[in-house]
Amino acid sequence: MVLIAREFFVVLVEPKYSGNVGAVARVMMNFDFSNLYLVNPCELDKDCFSRAMHASSIIENAKIFDSFEKAIKDLDFLVATSSVATDSEKKHLRKAILVEDFSKKILEVDGRIGLIFGREDFGLYNSEIEKCDLLVKIPTSEKYPSLNLSHAVCITLYNLYLSLKPPSLKTGRRLNHVEKEKLFEFLSLLLDEIEYPEHKRKNTMIMLRRILGRAMPSKWEYHTLMGILSGTIEKIKKMK
Amino acid sequence: MVLIAREFFVVLVEPKYSGNVGAVARVMMNFDFSNLYLVNPCELDKDCFSRAMHASSIIENAKIFDSFEKAIKDLDFLVATSSVATDSEKKHLRKAILVEDFSKKILEVDGRIGLIFGREDFGLYNSEIEKCDLLVKIPTSEKYPSLNLSHAVCITLYNLYLSLKPPSLKTGRRLNHVEKEKLFEFLSLLLDEIEYPEHKRKNTMIMLRRILGRAMPSKWEYHTLMGILSGTIEKIKKMK
Repeated sequence: MVLIAREFFVVLVEPKYSGNVGAVARVMMNFDFSNLYLVNPCELDKDCFSRAMHASSIIENAKIFDSFEKAIKDLDFLVATSSVATDSEKKHLRKAILVEDFSKKILEVDGRIGLIFGREDFGLYNSEIEKCDLLVKIPTSEKYPSLNLSHAVCITLYNLYLSLKPPSLKTGRRLNHVEKEKLFEFLSLLLDEIEYPEHKRKNTMIMLRRILGRAMPSKWEYHTLMGILSGTIEKIKKMK
Repeated sequence: MVLIAREFFVVLVEPKYSGNVGAVARVMMNFDFSNLYLVNPCELDKDCFSRAMHASSIIENAKIFDSFEKAIKDLDFLVATSSVATDSEKKHLRKAILVEDFSKKILEVDGRIGLIFGREDFGLYNSEIEKCDLLVKIPTSEKYPSLNLSHAVCITLYNLYLSLKPPSLKTGRRLNHVEKEKLFEFLSLLLDEIEYPEHKRKNTMIMLRRILGRAMPSKWEYHTLMGILSGTIEKIKKMK
């Protein structure tokens, strides 16, 4: 087995607003990223640290460079990000892949991977995109594609996080066949008790089956539902 | 055919920082959402509008309510959002589904759908979550799950945008079989011309096929590559 050593570096090129740098640090920590490279950043003032919240260590450990070339020198694979990409086949420079596809493809790459984000106002220059191995596009409204810097980082890292550490929620064991049929038996008993019209019955039972099919109740929810149903049936029987 | 009328409302419950409200408005416009409901918001000052950028109309048209109950009164389906959810089966209140699954499931729902986001510091109260039809969890690092408000909105709307309007990039027509074989014929001719060692040849040709397979060049890229290859082969032939 070959072990893949993959390390990500968020590179902000000439960020102008220190609040954005702080917001980027926070969202990096939210998705388990920690390496921040800054090229000619604005002053990292109070605003930066207050927006970073518990991620101030990422700011403190950020590496600062005075040129793009110096920042990318030790990175093996460079990914430029943009919400503006071309559809033209002839313009190789701005040809992009979608961020979700990128997040799956990157699992084949190892080494030190730089995620390059451009200026708040002018994005990345062509001379910078030229040096990148890949251009990644974040899908957005065509009417207003320009994302806030920290939002662009947020979506990129969120997609990477999903690929690198697929999340799951413990949903609890689902109902088995016997439990499911028991539930429908009780529902059918309830319809008996309330003298539900015979001609509507079949359709209603199918509808209940569909509703519960979509809801996919867990074991615990099943027991609660069964409790309610049997309680209701008992109550009606007693009242008769 | 049944037409589904589905409208989304972003509901911010007691937002404290006006910059966050502005950032939320901007990201709403980035993903083609426009209805903003605010429950007891902070003052919508200069900071709010400067962060909203071109989305100031969303702020100007936002509906303001003085209680959560009033805000949700005309909404048909309520979705609470959280990056903190429980795994316990017994706590129905905080049982959640993942935001990507939610974005697919919501395509079955019509009506006025409220996406409810809680306070920056305390999130949503249990009494508010109780009134919601669904709790949606945004997957994050367990070490630092607390997302900035506008980042939480950003990821939720991004996922909905992908489901509602699946994006695609025109990638151009791919190579057909004849073009592909022509390319490998030229690569093979090049190996001839440079007297590439016979015993390494087969493996190298396979490697080239794999590289181009992964790169999936378009028609235009193909013509450029063929131009380079034929130019190189001609050049070597002439020099002989």
